[in-house]
Amino acid sequence: MPKIVRFYETGSADVLKIEELPQTEPAEGEVRLKVEAIGLNRAEVMFRKGQYLEAPELPSRLGYEAAGIVDAVGPGTRDIDIGNRVSTIPAFSMGKYGVYGESAIVPYQAAAHYPDNLSAAEGASIWMQYLTAYGALVEIGQLKDRDSVVITAASSSVGLAAIQITKAAGALAIATTRGADKKQFLLDAGADRVIVTDDEDLVEKVMAGTSGKGANLIFDPVGGPLLEALADAASPGATIFEYGALSPAPTIFPLLTALQKGLIIRGYTLFEIVGDAKRFARAKQYVYAGLESGALSPVIDSTFPLEAIADAHRYMESNQQKGKIVVIV
Amino acid sequence: MPKIVRFYETGSADVLKIEELPQTEPAEGEVRLKVEAIGLNRAEVMFRKGQYLEAPELPSRLGYEAAGIVDAVGPGTRDIDIGNRVSTIPAFSMGKYGVYGESAIVPYQAAAHYPDNLSAAEGASIWMQYLTAYGALVEIGQLKDRDSVVITAASSSVGLAAIQITKAAGALAIATTRGADKKQFLLDAGADRVIVTDDEDLVEKVMAGTSGKGANLIFDPVGGPLLEALADAASPGATIFEYGALSPAPTIFPLLTALQKGLIIRGYTLFEIVGDAKRFARAKQYVYAGLESGALSPVIDSTFPLEAIADAHRYMESNQQKGKIVVIV
Repeated sequence: MPKIVRFYETGSADVLKIEELPQTEPAEGEVRLKVEAIGLNRAEVMFRKGQYLEAPELPSRLGYEAAGIVDAVGPGTRDIDIGNRVSTIPAFSMGKYGVYGESAIVPYQAAAHYPDNLSAAEGASIWMQYLTAYGALVEIGQLKDRDSVVITAASSSVGLAAIQITKAAGALAIATTRGADKKQFLLDAGADRVIVTDDEDLVEKVMAGTSGKGANLIFDPVGGPLLEALADAASPGATIFEYGALSPAPTIFPLLTALQKGLIIRGYTLFEIVGDAKRFARAKQYVYAGLESGALSPVIDSTFPLEAIADAHRYMESNQQKGKIVVIV
Repeated sequence: MPKIVRFYETGSADVLKIEELPQTEPAEGEVRLKVEAIGLNRAEVMFRKGQYLEAPELPSRLGYEAAGIVDAVGPGTRDIDIGNRVSTIPAFSMGKYGVYGESAIVPYQAAAHYPDNLSAAEGASIWMQYLTAYGALVEIGQLKDRDSVVITAASSSVGLAAIQITKAAGALAIATTRGADKKQFLLDAGADRVIVTDDEDLVEKVMAGTSGKGANLIFDPVGGPLLEALADAASPGATIFEYGALSPAPTIFPLLTALQKGLIIRGYTLFEIVGDAKRFARAKQYVYAGLESGALSPVIDSTFPLEAIADAHRYMESNQQKGKIVVIV
């Protein structure tokens, strides 16, 4: 029987249990993977804590991203066969389809081929990060070479994806990180400028880096009091994407600054992309082309065995990582 | 010497003083009006209190909208002559060009002809309200007949303009007002539904009025705690325009709702329209066509003489008015 990760109560990483559960068969429109690697996301930590957009029905599976080999297909699936090497795209309910385990069932549209030259660990590290950053910056933000982009929490996998996408467009990538220890890493990862927010004034540094104009695209998963500083660092007419809720503090809408500058502040998740067939198709095409050209290249911080899934979650919550945390199955 | 309204300190309506000041001549690019009527705006109350986007340099003039006859033109002006009947468009610094008084000087591009069949009081009641509502709903919001629009503070001149513009597009206009006393007035003004927020639950009523879908365009000058309710009443992908700051309470950004629904919450002022030549031209054309067809028709609540300018401000602050307050000079 395959080992599957579930939790019976929300809370710390301790709630994650590895259980042997009977093998199940894919239903209509579903496929089953023999999982080789699992890419971890902050969304799963939030879900485990009961703080995510979707609430778990306990006991609950979890997990959005796995790479593996298709070992069963349900009726009504297309373009996918047993033996295919695929990775999963977060286009489903995590509670219903969570992929943490040796076996995972997902809707067939959420299982995509990934380039042959990528390892399974890399295959499990592409969709969430690149689709999320692509959707905001390119599809909605219409990123162009003259743009200045502020990327907060830049050492996260999505942050690094945003740096790569910004540089691929020829735009200016301004990365922020709390401590000085990740500064050189972010410069090496392609950031044009890195602001260490524990030591430097974000607004002043963004203005200095943009000839006083401010950034016209801002990509932020933090929220909370940071939003006011980001609004101050924005140029007139700028768009601020809020794509997470990492800050536990209330997020104040910077009303006067937003009025004065005509700022667009929008909530954003990749579901706006994967839930729209045309956008989804363009997004996949963009990611395939970027991986092919080398403009996009997933950064893996470290790997854990499945048995250490709770340690892997604890490590993510420590915020030490620089890139993707992957579980090898 | 013409009577001019100025204030020497920010504060209550008592600070407004009527002074006789020497006649001045228009400089390069400016024209002078013999003022016949002045349209009052909330912006002037905020400016008088020192709470507006622009801070006054004391002593300061104030006022955005006047109708009158051109009685002097400076060099470098075009398409405008002495004797023309014009009204002023808020496309200038209120502190520098404030129009409250018997004589006003404004940049020539801010003086526009208005239809012959409108009185001076009506001429002073068109630009702020229609350009503000048009810019948000039509130019940016791309208003279509299938849209559902929530209009808060709907009895204000801009709110009524938004109702007329929404109905002209064939869309659903849901107006909100605090007390039941203005409900019939708003229905008569064209609102499809009126929500009395002192007595009714805004979210429930908007959902009931939109078959559970929510409103996809929301036009709000209030901010503060209301924004959370408006986000709850919004449909997925909706745009919420915040175009004022009437609430003294902090405005919380509804982060989780914005993420779940992909909401766009943006600061907006008509300066986004009048500061862009193409948008400005389209906006004026829209207003002229609407006044011509009768789709747009300014609603005047009451008139005051210039001597009672402080009373007119007090009356605006009492929130009793239904439409525009005009000072006849």
